[in-house]
Amino acid sequence: MDTWMRFMSNDGGVVFGRVENGYLHEYDSLDQPVPTGAVLSLRTLTPLAPCAPGKVVALWNNFHALAAKLDKPVPSHPLFLLKPPGSVIGSGAAIRRPAHYAGKIVYEGELGIVIGRRCRNATVDEAAAAIFGYTIVNDVTAADLLNENPHFPQWCRAKGFDTFCCIGPAILSGFAWRDARVVTTLDGVERQNYPLADMVFSPAEQVSLISQDLTLEPGDVIACGTSLGVGSIKDGATVAVSIEGIGTLSNVLAVGGQDVAAANAAAVPA
Amino acid sequence: MDTWMRFMSNDGGVVFGRVENGYLHEYDSLDQPVPTGAVLSLRTLTPLAPCAPGKVVALWNNFHALAAKLDKPVPSHPLFLLKPPGSVIGSGAAIRRPAHYAGKIVYEGELGIVIGRRCRNATVDEAAAAIFGYTIVNDVTAADLLNENPHFPQWCRAKGFDTFCCIGPAILSGFAWRDARVVTTLDGVERQNYPLADMVFSPAEQVSLISQDLTLEPGDVIACGTSLGVGSIKDGATVAVSIEGIGTLSNVLAVGGQDVAAANAAAVPA
Repeated sequence: MDTWMRFMSNDGGVVFGRVENGYLHEYDSLDQPVPTGAVLSLRTLTPLAPCAPGKVVALWNNFHALAAKLDKPVPSHPLFLLKPPGSVIGSGAAIRRPAHYAGKIVYEGELGIVIGRRCRNATVDEAAAAIFGYTIVNDVTAADLLNENPHFPQWCRAKGFDTFCCIGPAILSGFAWRDARVVTTLDGVERQNYPLADMVFSPAEQVSLISQDLTLEPGDVIACGTSLGVGSIKDGATVAVSIEGIGTLSNVLAVGGQDVAAANAAAVPA
Repeated sequence: MDTWMRFMSNDGGVVFGRVENGYLHEYDSLDQPVPTGAVLSLRTLTPLAPCAPGKVVALWNNFHALAAKLDKPVPSHPLFLLKPPGSVIGSGAAIRRPAHYAGKIVYEGELGIVIGRRCRNATVDEAAAAIFGYTIVNDVTAADLLNENPHFPQWCRAKGFDTFCCIGPAILSGFAWRDARVVTTLDGVERQNYPLADMVFSPAEQVSLISQDLTLEPGDVIACGTSLGVGSIKDGATVAVSIEGIGTLSNVLAVGGQDVAAANAAAVPA
């Protein structure tokens, strides 16, 4: 198991690599993981989302417990929407309330799959081999927009706003997801705590089935869907999603706050 | 009015520029339109989609005539889904039937807006200035998947398959869209012929409103939605979408056909 992160350096460049004992061992990139030889202290670096996905595929209804609660049948194929690249922020950055939206904003703590190599029509075994590692996603939704128009459910709009896809803090390769739980807290109070073993489609099954539809590229992220305990975030509240081994993804909901985003991004973890 | 195209050169490089009298006057890029000084004969070049969008925003229900026929109210905000970057092909390339899908595949001839500069919270005037030009889109759909699951309409999946977003052949800057019509033929028989003046949200209104939600980046495409005459494409049939001044976007529906795609891509227009 290795922990991989992405940072902005003091000169504004982006560095990616393996993190160990407070240092970043730099690598060329996620799909060409060749060490550059550079070793940097994390103290001088500002964390970013651990990858820069060209697309984020977000699953709906992928946990048995949530399907039972919603009284929906378990799907026979992954049901998904797309979140745009510009919606991605890292841990510590602020989720920004859209200027013209006063409604409910909802968190969903999720496991994220990070693709390591191009993947099309993959078997389940090929799909497993194409997974670089696992991260944490908070799949944020402007919930009141979803069914605002009775003729067209606005999944992409409600979930696609800038800053509505929190990813991080790290990618863990070789992660035994089946034994792990997703724990979400809202201002420190636990709201979600569910086992990943309850997933309908396993990560390799998701990658295999989705790759029959869309070519998946290195750095793309699949958000595996959430389970029980989804709820709304008040302005100023902090959502923290933890998966043991990967870490904690923490983001505040700010109003209008480019400055808040910058301030949070500067809070480098030890 | 200038015509802009993108090509693959013999050495596998991608070139972009202004087309005039059978020659490409190369420019750095769409967002930095600075001439490089190179002038290339089109005979040596293979056409690609005229831009490489990081995201394609596709509108639903944006024409009064179609809204009336579907008996749906005209929306108060653009209703959209996202098509992934990997779904984009140029004119002459083949639409490929997904391996595990035997159902109906549908064409939609549309005007495409190509974004020229980063655009966030833009006024209508700022939005108009951020439009680089206009292209043609065939927004292809695996129609039987859309409502296959009664609990979740699969817009992104049905419209997101590789090759399901045909864009081209060119981008026309300074285009007077209001006077133009979209004409779609299927194997030479006219199926759509509708005026762009019937649009609900004008291009600048679309860019302005969507930029309140998502930051639009240079090269991003907004497909303006279609009107009357949508229909299904039989395997082997050719869909040609024309807008006078921009040109004709022509794509065949192939089964299994990487080879067909390559053969079509090699058919360089004069």
